[in-house]
Amino acid sequence: MAQTLPTTGPQAETPQDDPHLVEHTVQREQLLHGHFLRVLRDTVRLPDGGEATREYVLHPGAVVIVPLLTGADGELRVVLERQYRHPIGQVILEFPAGKRDGQEDLLLCARRELREETGYRAREWAHAGVMHPVAAYSDEYIDIWFARDLTLGERHLDPGEFLDVTTATVPELLQYCRDGRITDAKTLTGTLWLQNLLSGAWTLDWHADADASAAG
Amino acid sequence: MAQTLPTTGPQAETPQDDPHLVEHTVQREQLLHGHFLRVLRDTVRLPDGGEATREYVLHPGAVVIVPLLTGADGELRVVLERQYRHPIGQVILEFPAGKRDGQEDLLLCARRELREETGYRAREWAHAGVMHPVAAYSDEYIDIWFARDLTLGERHLDPGEFLDVTTATVPELLQYCRDGRITDAKTLTGTLWLQNLLSGAWTLDWHADADASAAG
Repeated sequence: MAQTLPTTGPQAETPQDDPHLVEHTVQREQLLHGHFLRVLRDTVRLPDGGEATREYVLHPGAVVIVPLLTGADGELRVVLERQYRHPIGQVILEFPAGKRDGQEDLLLCARRELREETGYRAREWAHAGVMHPVAAYSDEYIDIWFARDLTLGERHLDPGEFLDVTTATVPELLQYCRDGRITDAKTLTGTLWLQNLLSGAWTLDWHADADASAAG
Repeated sequence: MAQTLPTTGPQAETPQDDPHLVEHTVQREQLLHGHFLRVLRDTVRLPDGGEATREYVLHPGAVVIVPLLTGADGELRVVLERQYRHPIGQVILEFPAGKRDGQEDLLLCARRELREETGYRAREWAHAGVMHPVAAYSDEYIDIWFARDLTLGERHLDPGEFLDVTTATVPELLQYCRDGRITDAKTLTGTLWLQNLLSGAWTLDWHADADASAAG
């Protein structure tokens, strides 16, 4: 049944300047340890001294990659995936993404996921930012990366993973975000970054891939 | 323990044109029915005939509101909330948002959440789109609404809910998205909509609030 765990984690990052907002963990139990999902229930002390319970998913963290490709016509394109997402019962359009493997370095994770899912390797990488998809009930963060100067190799999907790789021009990508063909949060957020990057409003710090094999 | 449920839901929306991607539910069990979170585990038939399990959170759906305010200086501002999110242990900046109450109409939900959390009522509303924050492990969708011509009344927070209401200009909002002060997915997505709305690239269909009390 429920198991009492040490109250580390969220507590460690508690800001000190918001005592009227911050909650403090007084008890923690594990509600579920599934094949994939792990769920905790924390009892918290509220800012007014009351108590409440917070239930949330534990997640290892993830990356999303905005892969930039120059088409045969010279026009900039992004690499997208079409993937069936069982919880919503739909095939959706997404930027390549994936979960961190333990304490894996986030750039290595981004490079691995891009290669496994799409076959592409990038000669240049840039870190954009981080997002929280559902801060209300998951500790998941998604690290946002851009990749360019791509070369196509073989992809290696995980067992049970099925997805199509496709591309879109930037006007197409924006149209899909507007008309509802793209509803995926990390893809919408990557598009916000891309749009501001292309307008020159935001900049990125590009680095050559340190992995020599990426160029081969 | 695990309970077998009818396999409705996701299956209903299965697209017929992607048999090489779509999974079919063959068994469903409820893993968790917490105070807040409900988790299912489906056994699915994969496109290649194999089987896999998919675990995910059941969610009633939610709304996010981008509330537009014209400041005393005539400059456009958005209404934001600062709220402690226990799973990530941080106070984060977010657009007002909240869960759907049963089968509540989504505009009524948006109006209610805006009023309860911020005290603002809007004389005009526009529907923007829909997003899926974590299609990999939750069926949650977030309906995206814009609100303008705001009047301030009293707010009525839920028990155990603590948040600060604040505002930002559009340049400030964009800067926060860029520098990591905003990491919340629905707020980043609302900002993508706002930016394209203000540039004239995207348009919205505004409607007067049918609730006469909104104008009072």
